[in-house]
Amino acid sequence: MSQGRKASRAAISVRAKNAVSAEENRRIFREKGLFVLNLIGSPGCGKTSLLERTARHFGSRMAVIEGDVKTALDAQRIEAAGVRAVQIETGGACHLDAAMIAGALSRLDLGGVDVLFIENVGNLVCPAGLDLGEHAKVAVISTPEGDEKPAKYPALFVRADVVVVNKTDLLPYLEYSLERAAADCGKLNRKARVLPLSCKSGEGLQAWFDYLEERISSTRAKSGT
Amino acid sequence: MSQGRKASRAAISVRAKNAVSAEENRRIFREKGLFVLNLIGSPGCGKTSLLERTARHFGSRMAVIEGDVKTALDAQRIEAAGVRAVQIETGGACHLDAAMIAGALSRLDLGGVDVLFIENVGNLVCPAGLDLGEHAKVAVISTPEGDEKPAKYPALFVRADVVVVNKTDLLPYLEYSLERAAADCGKLNRKARVLPLSCKSGEGLQAWFDYLEERISSTRAKSGT
Repeated sequence: MSQGRKASRAAISVRAKNAVSAEENRRIFREKGLFVLNLIGSPGCGKTSLLERTARHFGSRMAVIEGDVKTALDAQRIEAAGVRAVQIETGGACHLDAAMIAGALSRLDLGGVDVLFIENVGNLVCPAGLDLGEHAKVAVISTPEGDEKPAKYPALFVRADVVVVNKTDLLPYLEYSLERAAADCGKLNRKARVLPLSCKSGEGLQAWFDYLEERISSTRAKSGT
Repeated sequence: MSQGRKASRAAISVRAKNAVSAEENRRIFREKGLFVLNLIGSPGCGKTSLLERTARHFGSRMAVIEGDVKTALDAQRIEAAGVRAVQIETGGACHLDAAMIAGALSRLDLGGVDVLFIENVGNLVCPAGLDLGEHAKVAVISTPEGDEKPAKYPALFVRADVVVVNKTDLLPYLEYSLERAAADCGKLNRKARVLPLSCKSGEGLQAWFDYLEERISSTRAKSGT
């Protein structure tokens, strides 16, 4: 068997094993009536800032699983915003997997929680294809990254329930077309909602909160909790 | 054998195969007296903008191998700046490997070229560990990403010859400490030069050009071309 084929067979079994863990996570989420989001975006696009802002709005109704290659800086930021958080340090791995989430869930008190955020490792490529058992993938991009990102990294945008375009406060200093970014998202995925916002100024955050409330309600209604 | 162990053995053989291709690339680079850099950074940190600026300065003395998950937009930008470029579309893969570079080299006329840039896939994590045969890894980060990126994604900074901190023109609108970023880089790697610059305003670019000229000369001197 060629090296390439061996590697690809191994990748398939890793993926199959992940699917089992993801299904188990999904069962736990359903049992608890939790709405669960997987936040995916480049380093520095503002995933943690979005969670800090969201924490100020949702308070103890939310909890966070933080994924990082190194450091617990992000979990510390979230806890400082008054919300329960656990940190996964992947120690090199470029994305979270469902088994890591299962481990984190065992360390997290979910009493009274409506919505659980998983902040994936900062990476626009690798986390896109892996199921963690979540209800919705959220693509987070930011205006300084440039408006061609959906076209250049389609795998995430094809699967996203929401595309957050963060740092709209910097638009006056950049050449960035929100129209182009939204149009490219639309070509890849007609169902994804595009939400431009600024975690710095607060502009656009209400639409994000409304989306979350709507999905929290519908998840609760489905689970009968 | 466990699934995890199978996957890790397959990963080791992929890595061993890559080492052979990287060595062959290195032989070609030495033969041609080329200085070769591997640019690594997040999507939107400004790798292509840096190459456009560099193209205006070095003209036909430089050539570019562009790596992207999807589209040939970046190679088109580089060619529009008057420099030879070939595009590798990885079709999903999160980094370039040495065999992809070998393939691209066969499509690239290197006559009269002193310096070859490889722009890796936009990703701060996965490309860091893989040898393409290059002389120098360049970490490209940008101010809107936040000053804690070296601490959070150490693998690249440990190996970088240069750390370019792009988009200094946005500093007035951000809370970003160049001192913190540089100090964290220094803790990880005392040899890396930190070059703050702006591809938009041009500030700081001369130090980058000086670095390149210096390395081009020393590479030529060593190869005896």
